[in-house]
Amino acid sequence: MQIGTSRLATVFLTLFGLLAGLVLLPALGLAQATDPLHSWIDGAAKQAIVQFVQATTDKSSPNFVPPEARIATFDQDGTLWVEHPMYSQLVYVLDRVPALVKAKPELADVEPFKTVLSGDREAIAKLPKSDLEKLLVATLTGMTVDVFSAEAEKWIVTATDPRWKRPYTELTYQPMQEVLSYLRANGFKTYIVTGGGQDFVRVFSTRVYGIPPEQVVGSAGDTTYSYDKDGKPILTKAPKLLVNDNNAGKPEGIHLMIGRRPYAAFGNSIGNRQMLEYTKAGEGERLAMLVLHDDDKREYAYGPAQGLPDTKVGTFTQELYDEAKKLGWTVISMKNDWKRIFAFEP
Amino acid sequence: MQIGTSRLATVFLTLFGLLAGLVLLPALGLAQATDPLHSWIDGAAKQAIVQFVQATTDKSSPNFVPPEARIATFDQDGTLWVEHPMYSQLVYVLDRVPALVKAKPELADVEPFKTVLSGDREAIAKLPKSDLEKLLVATLTGMTVDVFSAEAEKWIVTATDPRWKRPYTELTYQPMQEVLSYLRANGFKTYIVTGGGQDFVRVFSTRVYGIPPEQVVGSAGDTTYSYDKDGKPILTKAPKLLVNDNNAGKPEGIHLMIGRRPYAAFGNSIGNRQMLEYTKAGEGERLAMLVLHDDDKREYAYGPAQGLPDTKVGTFTQELYDEAKKLGWTVISMKNDWKRIFAFEP
Repeated sequence: MQIGTSRLATVFLTLFGLLAGLVLLPALGLAQATDPLHSWIDGAAKQAIVQFVQATTDKSSPNFVPPEARIATFDQDGTLWVEHPMYSQLVYVLDRVPALVKAKPELADVEPFKTVLSGDREAIAKLPKSDLEKLLVATLTGMTVDVFSAEAEKWIVTATDPRWKRPYTELTYQPMQEVLSYLRANGFKTYIVTGGGQDFVRVFSTRVYGIPPEQVVGSAGDTTYSYDKDGKPILTKAPKLLVNDNNAGKPEGIHLMIGRRPYAAFGNSIGNRQMLEYTKAGEGERLAMLVLHDDDKREYAYGPAQGLPDTKVGTFTQELYDEAKKLGWTVISMKNDWKRIFAFEP
Repeated sequence: MQIGTSRLATVFLTLFGLLAGLVLLPALGLAQATDPLHSWIDGAAKQAIVQFVQATTDKSSPNFVPPEARIATFDQDGTLWVEHPMYSQLVYVLDRVPALVKAKPELADVEPFKTVLSGDREAIAKLPKSDLEKLLVATLTGMTVDVFSAEAEKWIVTATDPRWKRPYTELTYQPMQEVLSYLRANGFKTYIVTGGGQDFVRVFSTRVYGIPPEQVVGSAGDTTYSYDKDGKPILTKAPKLLVNDNNAGKPEGIHLMIGRRPYAAFGNSIGNRQMLEYTKAGEGERLAMLVLHDDDKREYAYGPAQGLPDTKVGTFTQELYDEAKKLGWTVISMKNDWKRIFAFEP
C-alpha cells in the first residue's frame, strides 16, 4: 500500500511541479516514517495494539483512560530481549567469578566457584539451585549500590553474545521497541517488570529502552544504610530478597512499586501469567500479550506450547497458550508477526 | 517593593496611555502572580531553595543536573501537613475500630479494641506498642487493596481535624505546596517519602499534592495474589512489613523504589536524618531542609531542639539541629520563614 501511495505521489509531483512537491512531499515522508509499528506485519497482533491505543486514548471512546492512569508493563527476558540459551544476567554472574576469585584466592578450590572457573558449560548448567544462590549472593551483594552499578555498566558495554557477536543490549526486539515508543507517544508510562535483578536492569534501561531507573520493577534485594570509614553514607546490597518478581510476585511487585493496575502488559512465559491475568481483570479496555518464540531461524524456538521444543528458560506451556486464547490475550508469533527481529538486520 | 513597582506602573500608565498599558500591565501582573514562593518571607530559607534551583537547572552552571536526574523527596507528616497532636493515619486507624467491631462483635470486649471504643484518649495514648500493632494489622490488612483504598478514600474526604474543623487534606503547608510546584515547574520529579503507610497516602496524593501513586514511597506491607470466588485475581494486604520507611529505611526505600539519589530532600524530624545525609552526600549541588515547628500560635511548637517543648510525634532533637548546621542543611522556621501556613488563611 505504501508503494502505491508513493507512485501516486510521483505522478502528482510530475503534474503539479515544485509547489505541489513542497506541500505533498513532507506529508508523505511523514506518513511513511511514522507507521510507529513498521516492523510488524499487518495482522491480528499489530491490530490488537493499535486498536487498544485508539480505544484508550480517543476522548470520545467509552474506554478512554486519562493520561495519568496509562500504565504499561513489560517483562524483559524473552519479551524485550533475547533470553536463550541463558539469561544475560546469569552470564554476568558467571563472568564476575574470575574477578571474585582474584580478590579472594581461597575461593578457587571451593564449589561452585571451582566449576565456574573450569569453564565447563555443561557442568555449570548442572549446578544445583543452592550453588546458584551462592553465586548470586557472591556476585550481586556485599558491595555498595554504586560499586555494583559501575561493575555492571562496565560489563554490559563490553560483553557480547556468542551467536550474534554483539553486545546483549543490541539483542532487543525491534518490534517491541516500537511498541514501547508507540505507547509512550500516546501518553503511556512504560515500565519493565522483570524477574531479573532490578538494580542490574536499571543500569542500562534508560539507554536501551528509554525507561528510567524508577520505572524498572524487578527482583530486588534489601540494602543496608551505613557509613564508610570517612563517615560518608553508603548503601550496601544485602543478601536478603525483598521482592521475588516472578509469577504472583509480579502483580505484587507492581502494587508495591507502581500502586495501580496496568492497562497493558507484555510477557512471554509462565512467569508472566499472573501479571497478565491481573492486568486483564481490570475494567475497560486492557491489553495482554505474549511473545511466542517460534522462529528458530532468526532467533530461537521454544515452548513447549504448540509442539515447540521444551525449555527451562522462558517456558511457555500449552496450558498458558490455552489460557491466553480463552481470556482474550494475544499471542505474538515472532515468525509470522514480525518483519524483522533486531534493529541491526538489513 | 511590589507596591512601589505598582505605583510606578500607575504613573507610566497615566503618561503613556493605552498602548503602554497593553505592554506593561500583563508584564507586571505576571511578575506578581509568578513569585512561585509567594508564601515565603524573603530570607535564607527561601534563598536556599531559589539558589539550588538556579544552580541545578541553569545549563551554564557547573552543577547543572539533566532533567531526568532531578529527583526531590519530601517527608509527609510534619513536613507537608500537620502531624500534631496525632498522625492523621493513626486517627484513621482509631476511626476504623467501630466498623471493625460491628463486623466482628466478639472484639468489643477484647483489648485494645475495648479501650479504643471507650473513646478515652488518655488511655488510648497509653496503649503499649504491641496493642498498637494489633490495631494496625486489624485496620490496614486483611482486605483487598481495592477495598482498602475505597475505605481510606471515604474517610479522608469526610474526617476533620478537631482544631481547624477542616479535612486533614486542607492542613497541608502552603509554602511547601509552593516548593513542590516550583520544583516540578523546573523539571524535578517530586516524591513523597513517608514513614506513613504507602497505600494510605497514595489514596489522596494526586489530588492533594499533585503527586501520583507511583511517586509515593512509604512504609509498605506485603500483598498476596489470589483469586476470589468468581476466579477474579485479587491482591490482599498481608500483615507483613516489607519496607519500614523511617530512619535508615528512608534511603533504603528510595533506592528500592526510585533507584537514584535525590538532589533535594525535605523533612522535619529525626526520622528523616538519614534521607537528608544520603541526599547531601551526593556530588554537586544538593539541598537538604528541615521544617522546625516553632509557631505555637499558627500551628504547633515542638522540638525539643532550640528549647521547644519535647514531643514524641515528630521529634526534632538538638543533636539533629546541630548536625543540620554543621552539614549545611537549612532549617526552616515556620514562625519566621512562612508568611502563611495554610491556603485557607486570609
